[in-house]
Amino acid sequence: MFALGVDPGLSRCGYGVVGRSRAGLAVSSAGVIRTPPADPLATRLASLYAEMRRLLAEVQPDVVVVERVLFQANARTAMAVGQASGVALVAAAEAGCPVVQYSPNEVKQAVTGYGSATKEQVQRMVQSLLRLPERPKPPDVADALALAICHLTGTGLRAAVAAAGGTP
Amino acid sequence: MFALGVDPGLSRCGYGVVGRSRAGLAVSSAGVIRTPPADPLATRLASLYAEMRRLLAEVQPDVVVVERVLFQANARTAMAVGQASGVALVAAAEAGCPVVQYSPNEVKQAVTGYGSATKEQVQRMVQSLLRLPERPKPPDVADALALAICHLTGTGLRAAVAAAGGTP
Repeated sequence: MFALGVDPGLSRCGYGVVGRSRAGLAVSSAGVIRTPPADPLATRLASLYAEMRRLLAEVQPDVVVVERVLFQANARTAMAVGQASGVALVAAAEAGCPVVQYSPNEVKQAVTGYGSATKEQVQRMVQSLLRLPERPKPPDVADALALAICHLTGTGLRAAVAAAGGTP
Repeated sequence: MFALGVDPGLSRCGYGVVGRSRAGLAVSSAGVIRTPPADPLATRLASLYAEMRRLLAEVQPDVVVVERVLFQANARTAMAVGQASGVALVAAAEAGCPVVQYSPNEVKQAVTGYGSATKEQVQRMVQSLLRLPERPKPPDVADALALAICHLTGTGLRAAVAAAGGTP
């Protein structure tokens, strides 16, 4: 099973494909989609959309895991993140992929056991869980991989079941 | 010249097509795109995207005018508005339409002469400017028409020139 994690952003949109087999978790591919800040907003979003569609066609993931962004101190950044996440969600839906979303705290909790973990702690745990030779950079890539891990390890699923009042 | 105004939203996305000729401004069509709140977020955004594309193909506007949302008190709503605006911007770019954006205050200033006008004042002025038999409802439709008017009357353009330090 392959999960495509997406950490939405306009300047940098992180993605990471993680596969789960009997041998454990393994990175299949990861990177960052960038759009030129000098371009008009609509052009940047269309470019992100095209790149996301290309990635989805190439990877054909079983599930797309997109960060649920609830609030950010910087309203301007929050709006750009919202727009980018909207584009990522549409691309996934158009590709016929199931979509799940987890909040940053759920992901940190799942990956590090601590909902308020720092960016560096997430990077280190992702490196360890995926047995990578070095820390995934930039943090957008680590966050995207963490999203995929969160879903694949079932921690996110168990949290969702528990939140719904079920017994995980 | 036809301008398609879009007031982005997930539950209700207002749109309004306004034409400008020697006879003045006139509404060509207007309405609201709704997505079912019970549907998954990605499905709702994909549905909005499909409706926007259908509308753009039908209207073939010379320009798409999308509200620039900078901040909203309700973080949850702001994120949904950001996602919807991202989808609208991508649809416009994919359709090859030029896109312009104005903030709510710029639109209110252009339409009512007062940047802090109420929803009702905007509705009344849009009704008057477009010689409509009654106030456009819901407010999302009035806002979308106001965006188109803001652009077509050049008020938005003059404001942009002035802000850039030029002489309107």
